Amino acid sequence: MSKPVVFVSDLGLRDEFVGVCHAVIARISPGSAVIDISHGIAPHDIRTGGLVLSESLRFAPADAVGLAVIDPGVGTDRLAIAVETALGRQLVGPNNGVLSLAWAADGGVRSAVAISSPDVVLQPISSVFHGRDVFAPAAAHLAAGAALSALGSAIPASDLIEAHLAEPDVERGKIGGEVLDVDRFGNVRLNVRPAHLAAAGLADASALHIATVGREADAPRISTYGSVGQGEYGVIIDAWEWLAIIRYEANAAAELGVQSGDVVWLTAAD
Amino acid sequence: MSKPVVFVSDLGLRDEFVGVCHAVIARISPGSAVIDISHGIAPHDIRTGGLVLSESLRFAPADAVGLAVIDPGVGTDRLAIAVETALGRQLVGPNNGVLSLAWAADGGVRSAVAISSPDVVLQPISSVFHGRDVFAPAAAHLAAGAALSALGSAIPASDLIEAHLAEPDVERGKIGGEVLDVDRFGNVRLNVRPAHLAAAGLADASALHIATVGREADAPRISTYGSVGQGEYGVIIDAWEWLAIIRYEANAAAELGVQSGDVVWLTAAD
Amino acid sequence: MSKPVVFVSDLGLRDEFVGVCHAVIARISPGSAVIDISHGIAPHDIRTGGLVLSESLRFAPADAVGLAVIDPGVGTDRLAIAVETALGRQLVGPNNGVLSLAWAADGGVRSAVAISSPDVVLQPISSVFHGRDVFAPAAAHLAAGAALSALGSAIPASDLIEAHLAEPDVERGKIGGEVLDVDRFGNVRLNVRPAHLAAAGLADASALHIATVGREADAPRISTYGSVGQGEYGVIIDAWEWLAIIRYEANAAAELGVQSGDVVWLTAAD
Repeated sequence: MSKPVVFVSDLGLRDEFVGVCHAVIARISPGSAVIDISHGIAPHDIRTGGLVLSESLRFAPADAVGLAVIDPGVGTDRLAIAVETALGRQLVGPNNGVLSLAWAADGGVRSAVAISSPDVVLQPISSVFHGRDVFAPAAAHLAAGAALSALGSAIPASDLIEAHLAEPDVERGKIGGEVLDVDRFGNVRLNVRPAHLAAAGLADASALHIATVGREADAPRISTYGSVGQGEYGVIIDAWEWLAIIRYEANAAAELGVQSGDVVWLTAAD
Repeated sequence: MSKPVVFVSDLGLRDEFVGVCHAVIARISPGSAVIDISHGIAPHDIRTGGLVLSESLRFAPADAVGLAVIDPGVGTDRLAIAVETALGRQLVGPNNGVLSLAWAADGGVRSAVAISSPDVVLQPISSVFHGRDVFAPAAAHLAAGAALSALGSAIPASDLIEAHLAEPDVERGKIGGEVLDVDRFGNVRLNVRPAHLAAAGLADASALHIATVGREADAPRISTYGSVGQGEYGVIIDAWEWLAIIRYEANAAAELGVQSGDVVWLTAAD
Repeated sequence: MSKPVVFVSDLGLRDEFVGVCHAVIARISPGSAVIDISHGIAPHDIRTGGLVLSESLRFAPADAVGLAVIDPGVGTDRLAIAVETALGRQLVGPNNGVLSLAWAADGGVRSAVAISSPDVVLQPISSVFHGRDVFAPAAAHLAAGAALSALGSAIPASDLIEAHLAEPDVERGKIGGEVLDVDRFGNVRLNVRPAHLAAAGLADASALHIATVGREADAPRISTYGSVGQGEYGVIIDAWEWLAIIRYEANAAAELGVQSGDVVWLTAAD
């Protein structure tokens, strides 16, 4: 029984990059479904890609192989890795941190290999597209039932690169958060959880004051988009339990002038 | 035998929203193919999304479950519904009219339920993304063979919200139509059918005069794009039997300054 | 056993065009996977679409049916064709050259038919969307196991239209190449192969001088993106063995002011 593959990348859907990875997987493991989570990660944004992979795998079939192709170091000596997490989930990608949030969510890594088997990688290996020649074939072999050890030699956990999400600065009455992502609707996801609001004593504030570099706004705490009027701000707990700044049927990120990585300060609104 | 799911939404393909719905469906009904019709519906455009769903289902496998996630009222008290049409087609989505063109095409609704079973919806239910937590699981359970009644309690047909396409204003020699949609090529689809042209006495006009707010153009009736020169206008019956204004290898909507919902007047060209 | 379908088009993913073709295929050959290579080909760009199809099929399952829908002549008297290559690969698309690079890669055509069987095409055939009514059904019937001859009458190879990639102008110390494509990252693919560099005596040049209409730049030969600094130019052999001009984490095409079809001159940098 073939396993599905859960696929996240920054390759976009305009060009043939993602489709060719699908073709490679279909040739090696024709019974595997490929579940495309997102290929619209900003180019080289390892942190966001890793977060999307980790959070999506919670909803995926338990045996799905995770595949992440966000690979600014392609062709350098960074390793191509496959790991098995403490919960038995198999993950494939470059050793640049993009897989680490997913294995951390599973309680760590049970075993890891450097993908190198000539029976797995496609020859010749392009120096610029390991998605096609290394990662997709490795994920497909795992999905077809191969053992991790069939992909290459074991590497120690100490060789694995980890990415970290910055924690917000939390003080009494004030949180300095960071924009994790802006979605298609312009909603601004911050690296702030409900627990951070509680720690800052802001959990019960009915509205928050939002300050960015050069802009500010007040926003009520809401639990559904439609509880503010069109174009008005609200602060909501989003579907992945992050704090998000939204404007109903409007673009909050554009109005606040923020993008991924920018700082946002939250205090109680008067 | 698992049924396929036909999926329409306004969620876009840049973010992880659609992919996570796929993941949820794969976990509940691993044998179901998910056929993505479009996720590029303009945000909150219930009418266009409903039209695309209805017209696409005509071409889909007879047992496919229709799934529409265009849901500006997510988290409010609008119901999440699943219906079975008079022809036995199962449809899942919010009770905001997005499914109604599809059931009307099938001759109406045979039975309907409010999706509420704790064995179906994912817990906790996010107040902002019922696509993942309510609609995708419900569609997947139906695709895996569950009965409609397994999803929740029956609701009367009188509780179902219907969307309606505006009819054009038809008088002798003149039609006031509305732009239904503009496609990727800039082709302008109107809510005008060949029968409306006949009713206005314009069926035999070899060319039509097109007037929008501030622009006008003459366009010959054509049956293939290439029968006008590059950049020239034509009026064509499109693949879904709507009247469409095109410019060959050029963008008609941009030149005419129109978008979805705008009014266009048609008369015979001199 | 159903075969997969490898699908390339210029239909885009915003509208329902591609999704409806998937629906049609699922109805005729429910067990067939559809592998979407790219639907972001520039409208009517037969050459790039044909190239993407041909190069992707090398990585696809051996029995996959190739389907190309780039069809500026839809509704005219251009034929809809299905061919079997000298290697037994089945291809479906309009007779405008879009399939020819794929069959040339296989050593030519063994047999060809004009798609016309009433058991295959959907009725009524729209004059504007043969993707849905002619090509998708034909590919699906082949994927379900039908013989080529079941689709329509044989046509002679001399009736088949071929597309050609322009060869670069190669002289001693200088190559006049053409932009084949610009990808999502702004990387500029030229119609230049390593063999052309060798023929011009430029194979050993450590850096190339790039001249476009109005711009110029020097770029070192590199084998991985990251071997130049951010924003700097490099010349690389890309994953399909074409010469490509890149800027690391920046857009080369925008800076050079080029798009598909433009001319680029290459000489040795001082």
